[in-house]
Amino acid sequence: MRRIPRHPHPKHTPGAAPDSGKWIMKKIVALIGAGQMASALTFPLIENGHEVRLIGSPLDDGIIDRLREDRYHVNLRRTLHEGISYYKNDRMREAIEGADLIVCGVSSFGVEWFADEVLPILDEDVPVISVTKGMLDHEDGSMQTYPEYWKSRVPEDSALRFYAIGGPCTARDLADHDPSFVGFCGPDFSTLEWIRSVFSTPYYIISLTLDTVGLECAVALKNGYALGTAMAIGIKERLGDDGIDHNNMKSALFQQSVREMMDLLALVGGGAENIMFAAGDLDVTISAGRSRTVGLLLGKGLAIEEILEQLKGQTLEAVVIATRTARAVKALAKRGIVREEDYPLLMHVNALLNEGAELDIPWKQFEQRIG
Amino acid sequence: MRRIPRHPHPKHTPGAAPDSGKWIMKKIVALIGAGQMASALTFPLIENGHEVRLIGSPLDDGIIDRLREDRYHVNLRRTLHEGISYYKNDRMREAIEGADLIVCGVSSFGVEWFADEVLPILDEDVPVISVTKGMLDHEDGSMQTYPEYWKSRVPEDSALRFYAIGGPCTARDLADHDPSFVGFCGPDFSTLEWIRSVFSTPYYIISLTLDTVGLECAVALKNGYALGTAMAIGIKERLGDDGIDHNNMKSALFQQSVREMMDLLALVGGGAENIMFAAGDLDVTISAGRSRTVGLLLGKGLAIEEILEQLKGQTLEAVVIATRTARAVKALAKRGIVREEDYPLLMHVNALLNEGAELDIPWKQFEQRIG
Repeated sequence: MRRIPRHPHPKHTPGAAPDSGKWIMKKIVALIGAGQMASALTFPLIENGHEVRLIGSPLDDGIIDRLREDRYHVNLRRTLHEGISYYKNDRMREAIEGADLIVCGVSSFGVEWFADEVLPILDEDVPVISVTKGMLDHEDGSMQTYPEYWKSRVPEDSALRFYAIGGPCTARDLADHDPSFVGFCGPDFSTLEWIRSVFSTPYYIISLTLDTVGLECAVALKNGYALGTAMAIGIKERLGDDGIDHNNMKSALFQQSVREMMDLLALVGGGAENIMFAAGDLDVTISAGRSRTVGLLLGKGLAIEEILEQLKGQTLEAVVIATRTARAVKALAKRGIVREEDYPLLMHVNALLNEGAELDIPWKQFEQRIG
Repeated sequence: MRRIPRHPHPKHTPGAAPDSGKWIMKKIVALIGAGQMASALTFPLIENGHEVRLIGSPLDDGIIDRLREDRYHVNLRRTLHEGISYYKNDRMREAIEGADLIVCGVSSFGVEWFADEVLPILDEDVPVISVTKGMLDHEDGSMQTYPEYWKSRVPEDSALRFYAIGGPCTARDLADHDPSFVGFCGPDFSTLEWIRSVFSTPYYIISLTLDTVGLECAVALKNGYALGTAMAIGIKERLGDDGIDHNNMKSALFQQSVREMMDLLALVGGGAENIMFAAGDLDVTISAGRSRTVGLLLGKGLAIEEILEQLKGQTLEAVVIATRTARAVKALAKRGIVREEDYPLLMHVNALLNEGAELDIPWKQFEQRIG
């Protein structure tokens, strides 16, 4: 495993930042993965006067080609700002050279690639912040966030520090300067404050927390529950114009989702306050996008095979994460640590995704004695 | 203060209940206040085979007249089941005679009337369950739920027990048999279980909690935050077709609402788990109804005077409760117990409602160090 030696590089080039806060000087930010979210993050970065390098993963060559042509991002469907440097994966080393901040923007399917190919060549002194949402599950039922996983993949004496972004933020709305309220997490507030200063704009609102497990699990967990809650939208569509609002049904699923997510958060040792991110992210996820679509189609009564066929070619992270979460709960249940019946919505979503079950929301299993 | 003497009455008449659980026998349920929610509750009650008496408040004479005519509820806009006995307020005593359960269905504007006129004539042995949402605030900044308030209004040696219903449930969807997931709270699980058995149907899903303060405050607090979150819907409408989804904005407000509600819940001593009801109720409240409309119009930039003019004649409980909550926070801030700046969304909603402020959501004040 080769590693770029620590070397002094120009971290404090004064820049043309419009705002002149304590740290607001021109920084070099290298974004790895040219997906929608990393590309959307170039908006606040360029507007803050930073040098921005957008580096495609091995799957992003087409995106990079088009961006070089006219700055149009074919998936984000937005034209990026002028002034961004575009790199394909084969020029990774050059692209990260001298960077003050690394942004990991791979999808959850690129987590291994990032560990294998990128981590070994990073400068240990440069913080890494990830926008990859999701988590891993292990055979014993434990769940692991990506920052924790990557930390486990670098040598123990590595100084590399991992930070992450979570919260309700669609890439397109961020690119469009819609107010977007997220959390940045990581091991220390001083670096978090610095990273916030790099990204902060009037429309990009950033809270900070040291609770990486809490924030990252909160926004990972919401995946399965977005499928579960969006089912209400599909059921309503299926029922057609029956004169019923069906708002109670959707809110019932939302409420049950919040309850199960709170319990899961406690289970992984995340702070209860992170439920704000889980609930906010759940809300945005059922408003638009692929996870909403999968849940909606499940609610319409389609089998998962039909849904996958219909959405062929799209990455469906929610399906993967929901499956992982359910698998973890089942493993923990086997060990007597939790009871499957305390997660009836997650279990039903999992049964629909992985066990060929038919839609039959276990409403009465939501009933509990609380406290 | 006169009180009906304790007397034996036929509490256990076997009935024609479709389900034959432990307690499912025909009960006499008297609902006081013929508003939308109390009237919607007659659906599960009649379907469970109970004797149902719907008693109008002094403001409900017109509703009762029409219900007697053809069972149509003019505000709920639904036809009630056959078999309900209708009473006007002047026959209250007769109507509650022999009841096994009293349901208080007055609006928050009828809380005093219920205390003055109804509490003194109730049989102490008959539990009272309230669907009135809201709370009172006192000069010292303390907030009080209605069950607590009513308890304070009966003699100390009274055996009268108060229970309450909270959670995301619009009356119309309940009447339409849409799955509706609520919480019942009160001082003991045995009566709660019994009350649940009276109401329980496949579509009326009921969790139980002893945390009356937590549940009641959770669903009261959501009022101000429903206004705050629904502003996003109005802002989007005002901006028109600008090609931006604005989902991030709405979820940002939703997320901040959850955060502030969690802090307020802790402040009143309610359990954190009640945030599920607050979030679920927030979700349903911004989906339809008057509170959504007020928030939406605030988001469109209308002054509260214009909004009140536009909605003349409608009860706007959310405005009252939001004002009370903000007043409580301000009183507590004066005493050094909280900081107003920790509740920027509530404070802004209050400024719009009560201080002639112009719409200017304090996004950057949402930023926090958490934990």
